[in-house]
Amino acid sequence: MDNSKNLNIIALDAMGGDYGPEVTVPAAVEATEKKDLAVILVGEKKLIDRELSKFSPLETSLLSVVPAQGVVTENESPALAYRTKPRASVYVAAGIVKAGKASGFVSMGSTGASIAASTVLYGTMDGIERGAIGGPVIGYSPRTVIVDLGTNVDTRPEQLLDFGALGSIMSRVIYKEKNPKIALLSVGKEKGKGSSLVKETSVLLENSGLNFVGNIEPDDLLKNEFEVVLCDGFVGNIILKFTESLGKIICSQINEILGETDISKTLTASIF
Amino acid sequence: MDNSKNLNIIALDAMGGDYGPEVTVPAAVEATEKKDLAVILVGEKKLIDRELSKFSPLETSLLSVVPAQGVVTENESPALAYRTKPRASVYVAAGIVKAGKASGFVSMGSTGASIAASTVLYGTMDGIERGAIGGPVIGYSPRTVIVDLGTNVDTRPEQLLDFGALGSIMSRVIYKEKNPKIALLSVGKEKGKGSSLVKETSVLLENSGLNFVGNIEPDDLLKNEFEVVLCDGFVGNIILKFTESLGKIICSQINEILGETDISKTLTASIF
Repeated sequence: MDNSKNLNIIALDAMGGDYGPEVTVPAAVEATEKKDLAVILVGEKKLIDRELSKFSPLETSLLSVVPAQGVVTENESPALAYRTKPRASVYVAAGIVKAGKASGFVSMGSTGASIAASTVLYGTMDGIERGAIGGPVIGYSPRTVIVDLGTNVDTRPEQLLDFGALGSIMSRVIYKEKNPKIALLSVGKEKGKGSSLVKETSVLLENSGLNFVGNIEPDDLLKNEFEVVLCDGFVGNIILKFTESLGKIICSQINEILGETDISKTLTASIF
Repeated sequence: MDNSKNLNIIALDAMGGDYGPEVTVPAAVEATEKKDLAVILVGEKKLIDRELSKFSPLETSLLSVVPAQGVVTENESPALAYRTKPRASVYVAAGIVKAGKASGFVSMGSTGASIAASTVLYGTMDGIERGAIGGPVIGYSPRTVIVDLGTNVDTRPEQLLDFGALGSIMSRVIYKEKNPKIALLSVGKEKGKGSSLVKETSVLLENSGLNFVGNIEPDDLLKNEFEVVLCDGFVGNIILKFTESLGKIICSQINEILGETDISKTLTASIF
């Protein structure tokens, strides 16, 4: 009998998020039941074990625990935290991937700490100075990768150029785009418009060999026409959070006006 | 018989906007009929007269024409344009206010040119380095003045402090708020978060004597809790344009799903 299975192993920062093991452990159990996954729970062993004990041995059979000490909180400097508590859960989780024991790590904790852990432990690609967080965050444009979504709140033109290359790779690998169009978010399509960051970056992009198609305006974010849209991390994070809150408020307004009807369900599902 | 009327006189840059006199002149006629307004049309006399001739003398009785030469386009540097074409419509319109012949001027043309005209001709208030465009642009927060909405795309901390003072005055004068709460838009409420602009500005605001209540996140823009929200002009302009496009696309989506029914009309009217 062949019971071999093609399992992906994920290291999970069990201490991350607002509730820690109380939420991450049941979530991990569910994940191993629904997906072809095994999960390595990383964090304070006592807390994790307490949550694990609430499940049957069979339910937790694809879960293991790697102890870690401490958590990096949202208010800490990730770079400093790496020096003062290198055994914190997010760093240990990242290290498990580096050691080849897992194919990826997941954390709902401090974003900065995840980025710092990845950068320090894995390094960056040749010619790329810093990492960035990017992805499609607007429902109307499901293939538009926006970078940076908040990693670097003070972004320099050279970094945005790097993010263009990273976004392009993400679009090719994940969304199978052959030749992703890269656009730069500005307050007007005209070359003369925009902040000095936009002006300097567009010169770099024009001379980069990347498939740069020019500056776009906010309404272009909703057209699903561009595979990569570049902006500094402050702007990207504002767009990410603002879109989310606007979607929520519009949906609750629809529910308020229509009540919880089939129509309101169709509408809110299509909007959010 | 007393026919005297309390009329406001407005100087209108008749050349502004995408269509110029073809649209601005009929709009001015309508405005004088519906409001207690007299309008001074400023621009190329020949073009304005052609449009005026399409109306009866009675209809145009509260309109007069002041000739101007040239228009400042979106692609021009407003500062340079003021030197090379000081007789352009927007500058002449601004000059009419300065001369005491009108109580305000209106232009749908280059925003930069309007700001430049106002700054050069009227100067700024004591201690205020530059002007800014601000106002409530989010339907959910009708009393929240956001500054800057796009005048200064590269804003310095000292300017944002100035805009805090300007926004506060706007909130007091127009929205009759007694002690407007001033907040700074960031990517997190915590002091340590945000761009260097945010960090430096929040120190200035804390020591300013203004009613600064701290940093807010994008979802706070929708809560109608803050009378003034400060951000640099690039971010403000992105928010302004993004909100508008998102509102439009959601409304057209509602119409598509529900058809043009009474429900869809109620919903879209409440959203946009």
